[in-house]
Amino acid sequence: MTSPEGLDARMLALARQAREASRRTAELSTREKNAWLLRAAERIEQARERVLSANAEDVRAAEAAGVEKPLLGRLALSDGKWRDMIAGLREVAALSDPVGEIVESRVRPNGLRVGRMRIPLGVILIIYEARPNVTVDAAALCVKAGNAVILRGGSESIRANRALGDELRAAAAETGIPEDAVVVVPTTDRAALEPLLRADRLIDLVIPRGGPGLIRKVSETSRIPVIKHDAGVCHVFIDSTADPKMATEIVLDSKIRQMAVCNGLETLLVHRDAARSVMPTVLKALHEKGVEIRGCAKTREIFTEAREASDDDWAAEYLAPILAVRVVDDLDAAIAHVRRFGSDHTEVIVTGDYANAQAWLRRVSSSTVGVNCSTAFADGQRLGLGAEIGISTSKLHAYGPMGLEGLTTLKFVLEGEGQLRE
Amino acid sequence: MTSPEGLDARMLALARQAREASRRTAELSTREKNAWLLRAAERIEQARERVLSANAEDVRAAEAAGVEKPLLGRLALSDGKWRDMIAGLREVAALSDPVGEIVESRVRPNGLRVGRMRIPLGVILIIYEARPNVTVDAAALCVKAGNAVILRGGSESIRANRALGDELRAAAAETGIPEDAVVVVPTTDRAALEPLLRADRLIDLVIPRGGPGLIRKVSETSRIPVIKHDAGVCHVFIDSTADPKMATEIVLDSKIRQMAVCNGLETLLVHRDAARSVMPTVLKALHEKGVEIRGCAKTREIFTEAREASDDDWAAEYLAPILAVRVVDDLDAAIAHVRRFGSDHTEVIVTGDYANAQAWLRRVSSSTVGVNCSTAFADGQRLGLGAEIGISTSKLHAYGPMGLEGLTTLKFVLEGEGQLRE
Repeated sequence: MTSPEGLDARMLALARQAREASRRTAELSTREKNAWLLRAAERIEQARERVLSANAEDVRAAEAAGVEKPLLGRLALSDGKWRDMIAGLREVAALSDPVGEIVESRVRPNGLRVGRMRIPLGVILIIYEARPNVTVDAAALCVKAGNAVILRGGSESIRANRALGDELRAAAAETGIPEDAVVVVPTTDRAALEPLLRADRLIDLVIPRGGPGLIRKVSETSRIPVIKHDAGVCHVFIDSTADPKMATEIVLDSKIRQMAVCNGLETLLVHRDAARSVMPTVLKALHEKGVEIRGCAKTREIFTEAREASDDDWAAEYLAPILAVRVVDDLDAAIAHVRRFGSDHTEVIVTGDYANAQAWLRRVSSSTVGVNCSTAFADGQRLGLGAEIGISTSKLHAYGPMGLEGLTTLKFVLEGEGQLRE
Repeated sequence: MTSPEGLDARMLALARQAREASRRTAELSTREKNAWLLRAAERIEQARERVLSANAEDVRAAEAAGVEKPLLGRLALSDGKWRDMIAGLREVAALSDPVGEIVESRVRPNGLRVGRMRIPLGVILIIYEARPNVTVDAAALCVKAGNAVILRGGSESIRANRALGDELRAAAAETGIPEDAVVVVPTTDRAALEPLLRADRLIDLVIPRGGPGLIRKVSETSRIPVIKHDAGVCHVFIDSTADPKMATEIVLDSKIRQMAVCNGLETLLVHRDAARSVMPTVLKALHEKGVEIRGCAKTREIFTEAREASDDDWAAEYLAPILAVRVVDDLDAAIAHVRRFGSDHTEVIVTGDYANAQAWLRRVSSSTVGVNCSTAFADGQRLGLGAEIGISTSKLHAYGPMGLEGLTTLKFVLEGEGQLRE
């Protein structure tokens, strides 16, 4: 179609438009942003047939190209996803606006008032899987936080993404918001990403969501700060003092409730003193629900239905009805296992021991650590952040579930009456 | 000396040692970290002669190599810098420990307590100018925040840096802290930086301080998150309602107090209605202090001693007795000038008008914005952060003066009694 230079120039032009729009989105009132969100919800509802037929065409093309089942599942806009997507726009409208919030405002000894004010980041590039509903969710959060957003979804979802982008932009035009607050990358050309990732004067943050290949590529290429939404190799550790019933319920909720989510349980660690007392009940319950158990030697001794686990199993994010199980000597061994094989996502201890609970919370440095609760609480909505843009496994800026606040920064605000330093 | 591969391997070995040490520094008690800081202060005082003679040798070598005056000034450890460096260690010991602090702890409707706990980042690489005192300041802050630090100072300061590093590490060994909590890169080979900047599994954050060339190179090469401590092209805007005496004092304090600092004033903007009333007094006072004025046409009309400013002047970080001055039509024009030419550092309005003060604070997105105060308050110590590692002009994670808190992150901490999601 176009030469590589032509593509680069087109992508940079899009980024410049978003940058220009971001100066205005930063100054929009809450009322203006909410009017856009509510109008977008209306418009997308009215455009249902057009969007769904674009999505159906995406699905047909993906099937014809022979893509895998899970991808098709993410791609198809089911009734449930459609409802959640529309409801999401209205929920984001109902969230309080982070922009302009002042935190930590104090008066210094010289009378100077020093506060920190929340402001937008500017332009955010989001790179995500072939999930058209993310186009809407991500745009809503980014713009509510006063940013412009550049959306690059998986190529299989291009038709639905464009259709949804059209509605979001038309709603912007109708409500006096710059259309380029929402830019959908209009091409599936893989080379389109590179010029964007190098445009560090036009884009302030890149959020890649998706497989390890994508995340690695973005980290290596980008000159723009990156917040990774990487794999979740989540652990539950059943301590020797765990209540057996509570342990069973937490493991089931963490593993069974939803299989293909990043906060799902992937490796169960069991204190050796709980191996004979608690573990059989837990593993039997999982087995009955159809979960395949892959265990260490001690696990297989006690639970003979278990298959043998390899080193690959300890690092696996199955997203499937498979669970790795390992018996460990003590709390230290459990923490060492998590440090070696974990992915900084979510780790829970089930224990009755106060000191062990405290040590787990203090010493495990993953983005979410918990005592006596399901791993499934690692979720922005459940933790009280409102909607989430994803779960960051990058320590800088936002670590763990990332909501509106993570899409802003804090500047220092000084209010004086003529204060001088000398 | 060694092959490039040998250098790469040596640098990666250093980074691995720091990574290993960081697991222990993260769990040190406040008492242990403070004991190290106080012992380091004692040891460095006792090693005064050895360190100063290493520094003198650095200075002689730099002079022989013909380096510029300002660099020599930064390199030489004056009595004042020596005192501040030793005092700095004791001040950091007195700061409260950020690690383990819990912020925003709330109970969700289901009884789950959700808090956020401050934890270290891990391993921090700091790349800085030939200023040996920064070796000590940066090590103190990074380790107090529970991190290990890799220090790469300007090559001219290598001898003093090594001598200071030896004392910091010896103090660690004496007080039971891992020596590799502080790693001084032992070579001046420029190629040593590249393998470190690519070691994103071993290093968590890179902080480059220094000229635009260095910062650009680091941003382009690094696979590790970068927080830039970049130039300060700071502005004061004298509004039409500014008090003339206050305006004069603020401009003098911002420009004259110290010239070669990033929070110093570089461009003065004057509302056209204050050009004839306020500007002459201000510029006369500056002129009398030996500051060269480079002005726009209107400025030169009113203050004939001014030379002509070019577009380069608007973007200049002089760090010298030169000031760019421009008359603007109104608040909007002042904000537009700052957006175009500023560097996201520090911008102050002098005004008597409430609405303009509020608009300046809200609309200018630099890391520090102020009303009726000196730009020189953009400083961690002055803003109540305690000592600072520098002033970030990167929006992500830490924006503006960056203290201990900026060297940590927050993880989510969940405390339950068996809560399930379903």
